[in-house]
Amino acid sequence: MTQYSKALARVNILKGHLRPSKEAKEERKNPSFSVEAAREAFWETYPKGYFEGYEALSELRGMTHRSFYFEDRKEVAREDTNKFFVSYVNKIFEKGFTNPEKIAENIDYFLACFDSINSLDYNTLTKLMVQYGLYCKTIKNLGTEKHKEILLEGTSLRTMGCFGLTEIGHGSNVRGIETTAEYDPETEEFIINSPTDTSAKFWIGNLAKTAHNAVIFAQLITHGENKGVHAFVFEVRDRSNHLPHPRIEIGDCGDKKGAHGIDNGWIKFKYYRVPRDSLLDKFGSVDKEGNYHSSIEKAGKRFANSIASLSGGRVLISRLSCEAGLIASATALRYGCARKQFGTGDGEEVALINYPSYQYRTITRFVDHFIDVIACNRMVDLWISNLPNLLKEKNRVTNLCHGLCSNTKAFVAWGVHDSLFDLRRACGGFGYSKYSLFDELIDINDLNQTWEGDNHVLIMQTQQFLFKCLRWLSKEEELPETVEFLTLSPPEIEITKVCIFDLNSLIKIFADRANHLVHRASHVLMIDATKIAQHFEDSQAFEMLEMCRSYHDYYLITSFKNWFEKIKCDKTRKMFEKFLLLSIHKKILGDSKYFSQIFETGIIDKIQAQVVKTLKELRKDIIPLTDVIPYPGIMMGALGHEDLQVYDRILQHVKATDKVTDKASWWKLTYANSKQR
Amino acid sequence: MTQYSKALARVNILKGHLRPSKEAKEERKNPSFSVEAAREAFWETYPKGYFEGYEALSELRGMTHRSFYFEDRKEVAREDTNKFFVSYVNKIFEKGFTNPEKIAENIDYFLACFDSINSLDYNTLTKLMVQYGLYCKTIKNLGTEKHKEILLEGTSLRTMGCFGLTEIGHGSNVRGIETTAEYDPETEEFIINSPTDTSAKFWIGNLAKTAHNAVIFAQLITHGENKGVHAFVFEVRDRSNHLPHPRIEIGDCGDKKGAHGIDNGWIKFKYYRVPRDSLLDKFGSVDKEGNYHSSIEKAGKRFANSIASLSGGRVLISRLSCEAGLIASATALRYGCARKQFGTGDGEEVALINYPSYQYRTITRFVDHFIDVIACNRMVDLWISNLPNLLKEKNRVTNLCHGLCSNTKAFVAWGVHDSLFDLRRACGGFGYSKYSLFDELIDINDLNQTWEGDNHVLIMQTQQFLFKCLRWLSKEEELPETVEFLTLSPPEIEITKVCIFDLNSLIKIFADRANHLVHRASHVLMIDATKIAQHFEDSQAFEMLEMCRSYHDYYLITSFKNWFEKIKCDKTRKMFEKFLLLSIHKKILGDSKYFSQIFETGIIDKIQAQVVKTLKELRKDIIPLTDVIPYPGIMMGALGHEDLQVYDRILQHVKATDKVTDKASWWKLTYANSKQR
Repeated sequence: MTQYSKALARVNILKGHLRPSKEAKEERKNPSFSVEAAREAFWETYPKGYFEGYEALSELRGMTHRSFYFEDRKEVAREDTNKFFVSYVNKIFEKGFTNPEKIAENIDYFLACFDSINSLDYNTLTKLMVQYGLYCKTIKNLGTEKHKEILLEGTSLRTMGCFGLTEIGHGSNVRGIETTAEYDPETEEFIINSPTDTSAKFWIGNLAKTAHNAVIFAQLITHGENKGVHAFVFEVRDRSNHLPHPRIEIGDCGDKKGAHGIDNGWIKFKYYRVPRDSLLDKFGSVDKEGNYHSSIEKAGKRFANSIASLSGGRVLISRLSCEAGLIASATALRYGCARKQFGTGDGEEVALINYPSYQYRTITRFVDHFIDVIACNRMVDLWISNLPNLLKEKNRVTNLCHGLCSNTKAFVAWGVHDSLFDLRRACGGFGYSKYSLFDELIDINDLNQTWEGDNHVLIMQTQQFLFKCLRWLSKEEELPETVEFLTLSPPEIEITKVCIFDLNSLIKIFADRANHLVHRASHVLMIDATKIAQHFEDSQAFEMLEMCRSYHDYYLITSFKNWFEKIKCDKTRKMFEKFLLLSIHKKILGDSKYFSQIFETGIIDKIQAQVVKTLKELRKDIIPLTDVIPYPGIMMGALGHEDLQVYDRILQHVKATDKVTDKASWWKLTYANSKQR
Repeated sequence: MTQYSKALARVNILKGHLRPSKEAKEERKNPSFSVEAAREAFWETYPKGYFEGYEALSELRGMTHRSFYFEDRKEVAREDTNKFFVSYVNKIFEKGFTNPEKIAENIDYFLACFDSINSLDYNTLTKLMVQYGLYCKTIKNLGTEKHKEILLEGTSLRTMGCFGLTEIGHGSNVRGIETTAEYDPETEEFIINSPTDTSAKFWIGNLAKTAHNAVIFAQLITHGENKGVHAFVFEVRDRSNHLPHPRIEIGDCGDKKGAHGIDNGWIKFKYYRVPRDSLLDKFGSVDKEGNYHSSIEKAGKRFANSIASLSGGRVLISRLSCEAGLIASATALRYGCARKQFGTGDGEEVALINYPSYQYRTITRFVDHFIDVIACNRMVDLWISNLPNLLKEKNRVTNLCHGLCSNTKAFVAWGVHDSLFDLRRACGGFGYSKYSLFDELIDINDLNQTWEGDNHVLIMQTQQFLFKCLRWLSKEEELPETVEFLTLSPPEIEITKVCIFDLNSLIKIFADRANHLVHRASHVLMIDATKIAQHFEDSQAFEMLEMCRSYHDYYLITSFKNWFEKIKCDKTRKMFEKFLLLSIHKKILGDSKYFSQIFETGIIDKIQAQVVKTLKELRKDIIPLTDVIPYPGIMMGALGHEDLQVYDRILQHVKATDKVTDKASWWKLTYANSKQR
């Protein structure tokens, strides 16, 4: 069995039950490309274990549709999520896909595979991310030999953990946290304390009701000196009764949009004492007497090292985000083939997908997110292969990873946000039904917006990376991949002749644009060298943002081109060439501020007309194209199943609604102003 | 007492309890305009009864913060909403603000006033809209003398009603509904029938559990002939036991995003008989023998008349939508003054509002929605004053109202959508807490997206209106207000010199743009006269959309200018001049495709720089500016109160969370993989 056929078998076990509609057969009759070839190429970009998740899932549940499972009430949702999370992890252990020791060796790789659960159940994914990506990973990366046992306790789920970094008063600016950990040499303990109201750790997933242990970040103080932010791991609840230890107050943060199944909590410490070994001491340790030791002199650098591996979150969130976009756009496309509305006046109504404006709203989105996933999977590979060298001095791939994933996360989350809502609207009222799953996808992506920090703040990391590249360039040092456009000579902004079908020239134009905008932004900074900080702030809304977007566009375009060029099947490769052309055209229309400066009059109108044409071509293949993505119909809600049986599925769900035809318990209220007859 | 001082008193009774913070006092020290003058001018644009709603509300509840009240569980939320809706209406009766007879005289005016409840409780507003704006209004507008009693039963809430127009298979295209009403002359009854699965009425608010009566739209058939869609009103539930009458099946649609308090239902009829008088027969009647009578010959025209008054929904939804935007932006502005993050390195952290990018994200939104509200209130006036002439032949104000409100609803809903999410992100993690109320505002506006039909479909009405105007113009007939730009000669697209501070020239440019884009769109249609329908579809994504946007922009700009020019206080008028300038500049940056064709090189960069400057100026007055809007702090969530006590309020709410420090009932689950120690 090849890797791909194994994957296919694993996805197929998650099929639904209705028979395909007439439309479904018709739409799949004569695709102009090979679905098989496209699938194989696309699925191969995922990490190898990715599809094992589906196999585990299918064995876990009778696999009724996930919208039946979804539970609104917080307490029930939390209980369900906990139960399911543990079963899921135990199932992948049981099937031998991985084990606690293997996970501990490469947590990032484990997450990159088993985050496939994202498309079924986001709450469970969040638990997975908190337990492994935050709690265990911090112990692994900041701990030393003595923390090995506690790490395995975590990876095996014998200990449930949480991750306490942000506080009420400090989110993005985590170096400013107020919690202190003061060393007491007499007892060889650290005293953890929350000196103010705003120093309570807040929004800590798993903390309110689940966690036994916590990783807590605090200002390390010894001999009266603040050594900066360090991480500690210790027990916060008494395992005999699951109550918080004395001098610890733990509470519930209340509802957080989109995270019903997660118990977000806050924690306050009142001079709570933990053993000296609680300090995760890879980058800084305190000896019995309270002397501080570190091979890294600067507190800033120590802190940077401590949180460097957290970038992995951005890498994965980027992919999760565009997967949601891909699922949503495929849903709207399938719905659009089944839903008919209006028409030429007499007789047959017209399927939505045959309206050009519907094509524009849905097909362009599908193409965008298809490209996004390819680019994100490239980033996942890059990240994982760089892990062993993450903290190596002068390793520019680390800079690249950090700059690239901050950018990608921001722009993908923004783009998918726009998509999800527009796609939901395209599905009319049914888009608002919980059975369409749009709501759930939207919730996922909403959280992705601010996780890892506000996107506007995140891309400042990318700005710094790009400016660093300029400095390396000026010293004739080598640049990492993805920024090769900077080695071109900075282009003049002048009218350029271009054929709108010539992919290579178009890509060159995007390289020039990125190059130009990086240089422009760097000039803005230097207008007055005494006010760089002010210029940096003032240029965020325009110059800096535009620079980052141009880098993102260039990264997407080139990643996608590199990918499809390797496809051997001619007609399939041509299909993806069309994808790229459409995407480039759309990007040009989206930034006419820049492009109208370099294109002859009329070119933009020509591109506009071409987009309408390309969409009509893609429309013919659109259902086979939705079959290329690796998400089983059962994960795509009532509107998005591959059998196109939209109405049957909606009705099936509706009839199964809780107390569907019962009277309400409060029915007499409706007679408040009148008597029953 | 003047109207304004009465309003002020009514808003003030809804104040919160904390003392203003240090920042709050500082921020209000020296405003460069008069808050009083600005308020008075702004509040006067609301209908006179608008503030009476606040007075009723304050007496109804102990007025704990609304986020305490909000209930996630569907059944509880529905019961609460029903209870509160009835109490609210009874309270405004009791206080003499209106009465059932008065409402029946002018339902639109009643709604335009008492929709002020929107800012406190959207579920209750929805109930109000369903009962009055849909159920009662249809009886009033399509019924005759004999339906008077049933109308008053509705306005007094003795009868709870619902409105059954859309079906599973037909949403936007309501003329295609499948439900039939066949007349039986033997018994003098209509037989209501749902012939297919897709003909079930669906998403009918109030139907699942509440309604006694329904207005049902169906194809009227008599003597074997289909006379088109007509409305009927009749009882659907037995008032002795609240069960559906035999031959009627009523069920629950399941969860609809954002409408927890509303019982959306579906209904199917199996040859259900209703008396002849159930037909709302203003535009078409059936005599005892089954002969059909109507003074209007065409079925299409009859149907258009029947639903003409429903446009009122769009008028109000537009305003509700931008109110949500205004509340959200004021919230983010106030939060931005209280929240500090990062800084110059040493010492004091910097308030978010002092970062230029934060200013761009929040202040421009506030200004946008402030202008939106002014423009929407103008539309409310226009609509209400045209009501008596709504169906008068050749009354072009009716065409205008229909075209204008379709456009405004679409663009405002889109714009506010972008705002709400961006503003929530600006508030970081706290934006996701239910106490911030963003979630609720977002839910409101999400529903506004597809209510009244998909926005892309809605603006086709505007397109038709604008093309009608061109035809009137070509016959030298008079145009209604707001489209006067069409009387200018169509401009050449050529480089135009302009001073970026000269409001009048800038407005002329927006008039030219709208004029140009209407003519361009009309040319596109006529490229090949045999294919107008196809051109119309093909140009939706670009030409038609851009045309509609340009009309919307022009409407906003001129409505706002007309409003602030009348303000007598110089410094206040100057403040709003600044608003308009900022808004115009932002619009120019948003459509550089058009504007880069007519501006000299460099102008767009100049405008960009000016926006950053204007924002710095407005920042100084920003808190006093938020005080101008008429929404009491209590309606603005934990982050948006006027006292700027963000952290205290958040903590107050959090500590009041249900079972805040309790163990979960399922706590033992957390030990699934280990034993309790």
